[in-house]
Amino acid sequence: MNVGLSLFAEAIAAQDRPVADVEWRIPAGGDLEAVAALRRLYGHRAAAIDEANAEVVRRLDSGVPLLVGLAPAAEVVPGLGDRTIIHCGPPIGWADVCDPLRRSIRAAVMAEGWAETPDEAGALVEQGEVTLEPANHHDTVVPMASALGPSAWVWIVENRDGGTKAFSGINQGPGETAWFGRETPAAVKRLRFLRDVAGPMLNEAVGAANDAAGNPLDVFAIAAQGLQMGDDVHMRTQASTNLLIRTLLPHLLALDSPARVELGRFLSGNHLFFLNLAMAAASSLTAWAREVDGSSIVTGMARNGTTFGVRLPGSDEWHLAPSPPVGHALYYSGQGPETSAPDIGDSALLELVGLGGPAAAGSPAVAGFVGGTMADAVKLTRDMDQICAGRSSRFKLALLDFRGTPIAVDVRRVVETGITPRINTGILHVSDGSGQVGAGVAVAPVECFRDALLALDRKLS
Amino acid sequence: MNVGLSLFAEAIAAQDRPVADVEWRIPAGGDLEAVAALRRLYGHRAAAIDEANAEVVRRLDSGVPLLVGLAPAAEVVPGLGDRTIIHCGPPIGWADVCDPLRRSIRAAVMAEGWAETPDEAGALVEQGEVTLEPANHHDTVVPMASALGPSAWVWIVENRDGGTKAFSGINQGPGETAWFGRETPAAVKRLRFLRDVAGPMLNEAVGAANDAAGNPLDVFAIAAQGLQMGDDVHMRTQASTNLLIRTLLPHLLALDSPARVELGRFLSGNHLFFLNLAMAAASSLTAWAREVDGSSIVTGMARNGTTFGVRLPGSDEWHLAPSPPVGHALYYSGQGPETSAPDIGDSALLELVGLGGPAAAGSPAVAGFVGGTMADAVKLTRDMDQICAGRSSRFKLALLDFRGTPIAVDVRRVVETGITPRINTGILHVSDGSGQVGAGVAVAPVECFRDALLALDRKLS
Repeated sequence: MNVGLSLFAEAIAAQDRPVADVEWRIPAGGDLEAVAALRRLYGHRAAAIDEANAEVVRRLDSGVPLLVGLAPAAEVVPGLGDRTIIHCGPPIGWADVCDPLRRSIRAAVMAEGWAETPDEAGALVEQGEVTLEPANHHDTVVPMASALGPSAWVWIVENRDGGTKAFSGINQGPGETAWFGRETPAAVKRLRFLRDVAGPMLNEAVGAANDAAGNPLDVFAIAAQGLQMGDDVHMRTQASTNLLIRTLLPHLLALDSPARVELGRFLSGNHLFFLNLAMAAASSLTAWAREVDGSSIVTGMARNGTTFGVRLPGSDEWHLAPSPPVGHALYYSGQGPETSAPDIGDSALLELVGLGGPAAAGSPAVAGFVGGTMADAVKLTRDMDQICAGRSSRFKLALLDFRGTPIAVDVRRVVETGITPRINTGILHVSDGSGQVGAGVAVAPVECFRDALLALDRKLS
Repeated sequence: MNVGLSLFAEAIAAQDRPVADVEWRIPAGGDLEAVAALRRLYGHRAAAIDEANAEVVRRLDSGVPLLVGLAPAAEVVPGLGDRTIIHCGPPIGWADVCDPLRRSIRAAVMAEGWAETPDEAGALVEQGEVTLEPANHHDTVVPMASALGPSAWVWIVENRDGGTKAFSGINQGPGETAWFGRETPAAVKRLRFLRDVAGPMLNEAVGAANDAAGNPLDVFAIAAQGLQMGDDVHMRTQASTNLLIRTLLPHLLALDSPARVELGRFLSGNHLFFLNLAMAAASSLTAWAREVDGSSIVTGMARNGTTFGVRLPGSDEWHLAPSPPVGHALYYSGQGPETSAPDIGDSALLELVGLGGPAAAGSPAVAGFVGGTMADAVKLTRDMDQICAGRSSRFKLALLDFRGTPIAVDVRRVVETGITPRINTGILHVSDGSGQVGAGVAVAPVECFRDALLALDRKLS
């Protein structure tokens, strides 16, 4: 019988002797400060924490995010100033903003009409005439290097049981787009198309799509079907997008304006259209969960391309670490790690509610990134099981006999095992503004979870 | 070591003795006439048959069915007489037609305007004033209890490599519809809606959806994606339908007529919209394969609710057996085997080209019918492996490390093993005209394969 280091077991096996190997690692990698905190948080404080965690799991699992419509951010997003651009990830000063996000912010400034050129736009931000704020601080989440001005139209998702609302921009689609770190005229034009054409028309179609009793669309009911159709609902949202389009079809066809054809071309070519809606839905639930004090479940996780941050319930504090590179990547031709920006975007919050990495076992497309077989994808889901406190009752994995995906990342388990959330994500060019260069699976840095664990331990002391 | 009957192995195992059990069954169930034919067809005739089979596999696997448009059957379906109704399955006289197909035929007669009531319609057929013909005899395939008159609009699918064309009606959708054996005013109205509204508008949208080089849509490219998204592309075509709708979206939105909204409502509510298109595509390939003489691969398989028939290449002969009941069924409330009509429709040809039963391992929805787990669905695919001569290079199974689905059912293997194609299908009410009562997996009757085997043996002698 061998416990721990497999070297010993291998030595015995090499002598043709039977050996039973028990996987065991030193908790928290032997970090004594973390071990001491874990002893308390798993010890006399465990009962209170577990109770709070159970409530967080309940909220993440049972909340029903409803799509109530779209509107300009200035009209609905709380606390949004006049000359403000909101961006992905934790708070950051202009000097530290990475290249793709800089370009996206400048594109958003130009889309607002505050500047004509990227240089003018950058100068306005540098001089403080345009304020930068994290979208997360305004109940809003945005994917990749997204940045939004006050005139941008946003999805409005409402969790009525919890009394929480969340917002997200309209997905900008493939190609020459600001969320991929581009600031070309075409990228600015796309932002204006979303504001002037797509936003108002989608709002009309969504409003007409309420059911007979007047209930809005249940966003996670669509995501749950999409998961049965190969979506992880993060890296791939093709099935969910198509389901949404089919649901909206009669109402899109009822639109009077001939511009509906342009909207149709945009929707038809955008596999990731559902992504932002899923993110707003997830955010409406993490916002509800964040109200539960004394829990060790992560309820915020976002990256701005420079820092990676997590948040715990009952606190506005961000626990930060440098944004990691994206691993397990497949690159476009001529691209590689050396041309890749670090992990970026708010979409990582999907991994907290059972989508993305935790849902890998439901997605042949994700399998392509983590080894090629469904067994590799199942391994990713099982890794997430080890750090999660619950299982989704709506997101089911056919391959695992329809059990739920792991939800609710417990910071104690992350620090204890050293396993961090795996995040299915795109990759942007690090510096030349050429946009997406690939996609892969990012491994969240353990340092910010350790920081969160120690803060929780201090708070409860 | 036990070979064959597991009883002996079980007896030894019951005495706690080790036993290795080799699965072996008497070929063709010990049917001496069939065994003699098999000896010849697997013996000195094997090389010629295998060569013909390889060509059939190549045609079924490599043919590219293109969607070229829609038109009234009278204008495009070859050999269609003026006062003719074409129906599913092998040829049949009115006296032997089962209840749901009778109702559907009467609905088609009324939709043509030849009669006002079901009684009038039935009398016209009975008196021979309306002729019944199998759709299969006119390069056309129709699902469930479908029947079509000359004014019905049909999908036109072309296999340009093979110079073959095939046709299918537009799927009639859920509810009160003739293909489910209903003949109500609503069912007749639906047939007229398909003819007057859906057909012409879909043709306009499909024509506009050709790619930049003017190439029409590749139907099986859509089906292959749908298979990665949980469709078996027979019992479930939800993903393929959504992919088709997303592809057509800009062109649907460009339609001038306000009736496009009605079309949108119909498409939005019809999960099986893609089914008929997949069938026409399959038929364009089996028609090409049927030209290969001396092959033992089944290239026609259809049921009219009374008889189940198969056809071999190089012959127009139908080999018949009674239509079986549909097993592994899930029924609507209050329904069961006693209220179920036998297996019906031309859709079984999908099982010859690697869709439906052979694709079960790709479809969580099918798993629900054959035991509940993906392991059960995999078992169904592996059973089909045993009777198929090839594997699809386009229909891939993620769960089996992306190997292809089994294609090309070899009548020799069917008779040798007693394993027959498993067909994922719907079930209709046996007598009261209330429509669909459930869905399940039908087991093709071995007798018609035996008859085909003996005919092949005679022909080659």
